[in-house]
Amino acid sequence: VSKVLLVGVGLINGSFSLAMKHRRDVEFGGSDLSEEHLSKAVDLGIVSQSFALEEGIAWADFVLIGTPVNAIKKILPEVLELVRDDQLVVDFGSTKETICHAVKNHPNRANFLAAHPIAGTEHSGPEAAFPELYQNKNLIICEREKTNEFLLEDFLNLARGAGFYFTFMSAGEHDKHLAYISHLSHISSFVLSNTVLQKEKDGEVILDLAGSGFESTVRLAKSSPAMWSSIFNENKLRVLDSIKAYQAELDELKRMIENEEVEEVSKYLEEGRKIRKILK
Amino acid sequence: VSKVLLVGVGLINGSFSLAMKHRRDVEFGGSDLSEEHLSKAVDLGIVSQSFALEEGIAWADFVLIGTPVNAIKKILPEVLELVRDDQLVVDFGSTKETICHAVKNHPNRANFLAAHPIAGTEHSGPEAAFPELYQNKNLIICEREKTNEFLLEDFLNLARGAGFYFTFMSAGEHDKHLAYISHLSHISSFVLSNTVLQKEKDGEVILDLAGSGFESTVRLAKSSPAMWSSIFNENKLRVLDSIKAYQAELDELKRMIENEEVEEVSKYLEEGRKIRKILK
Repeated sequence: VSKVLLVGVGLINGSFSLAMKHRRDVEFGGSDLSEEHLSKAVDLGIVSQSFALEEGIAWADFVLIGTPVNAIKKILPEVLELVRDDQLVVDFGSTKETICHAVKNHPNRANFLAAHPIAGTEHSGPEAAFPELYQNKNLIICEREKTNEFLLEDFLNLARGAGFYFTFMSAGEHDKHLAYISHLSHISSFVLSNTVLQKEKDGEVILDLAGSGFESTVRLAKSSPAMWSSIFNENKLRVLDSIKAYQAELDELKRMIENEEVEEVSKYLEEGRKIRKILK
Repeated sequence: VSKVLLVGVGLINGSFSLAMKHRRDVEFGGSDLSEEHLSKAVDLGIVSQSFALEEGIAWADFVLIGTPVNAIKKILPEVLELVRDDQLVVDFGSTKETICHAVKNHPNRANFLAAHPIAGTEHSGPEAAFPELYQNKNLIICEREKTNEFLLEDFLNLARGAGFYFTFMSAGEHDKHLAYISHLSHISSFVLSNTVLQKEKDGEVILDLAGSGFESTVRLAKSSPAMWSSIFNENKLRVLDSIKAYQAELDELKRMIENEEVEEVSKYLEEGRKIRKILK
């Protein structure tokens, strides 16, 4: 039986466990700063027992860290301090470079794997977890060469059981791409929400006038502020780059609208519409 | 039998017809600049016959105009010229003020109703039409007092059959609210798409790294460029206002990220997250 300690029992770690609920060869324990989340995770069958962190690490074969990224960066070196040779610590944070940097010269670096599941929802906490979240989803693995290859192989086998396939890249590459493809989406969504809420004080009006388009574009603004403020901070320089690129694009479109260049606006939208060919 | 002429046989008018396909007391005819769309609309059962515009108007009880808004503004005065006292022309455009203005002093103003269905998808054309689009959706009616009350009543009965409920407001109010709640969503989505496509030249990378969050936020960028370039132009001043407000919000968030004000960023996101309470 593989013993898996979930450090943080919210959407990300919780869904990993629920995906394997039918398996008798994997056992899940949990550790969380929130007593409430921990007892909910037990109630929901996400973990069968709860642990203080140190105690849980001693019990586990795999330690999965699924907390906001600032917390990962902070606790990871301490967790790595406690592991035996045959244990693997995996983090599921949405940024990778500062996390990898924090344990770059750690004596137990080979017992750590940096990973990022490309899946999630705008909800958070143990109640948001569900078994299908990772079905056919991409788990990005960074700096694979720094992880003990046998421990890595064991973990990939486990994660395959949750539904994942894998891609591999450097932590810097990961953070650069994700700044544009993921972090910027969240920023534009939160900014849209704040702009509309500033202007429209009456929620009834929004509800009456919002089509499915607004709902879709603003959906990510329902995401966890603790998680996302921390991601923007950890990936600060690249997030700022992506914001600047976005601002330049927005300025260009604004100028064309101002000058009533309808044909040019239409061409601009046609360019953006090419995303159709990529996302079916 | 009520005879309804669809001027433009795409998503908007097409879905109106398909919602009433089972009814034997309503008959739909179509007119469209695109022969291809017109023959598809016949094949799909959206209309039972196709007409040249003038001929169709002579045939119809109701004339529904569901074309891009610049085309509505252009053809509406000409269409109104041709109607009899017992006919009603309805436009389904996403902006209302310039359209209402174009027929403000028209001798047949009472035979016109300005309407906007708060429903749609990112797809367009007759094949995008489907019968459930307007189920329990809001049809905004502007300047109702300028429309003949009996013709209005008849039309509301018809539209109720497509699934609509109704709200009433002035054209200016409509355009102001929609600039923020709808048009700005489309702008932020198109700009996000262009920013990502500029940066990520490799579609495979986008596909591998895009979670459902990116897909949701960028969905509206799949919308029709002809339709949206025309909306931005017709509602130019209010759209520019909404862009400026959005830019100010984005600048604020950017500044906080730059200064590593993580707590402030978190509060900002918490504000945006209040949209949860409005959109369940």
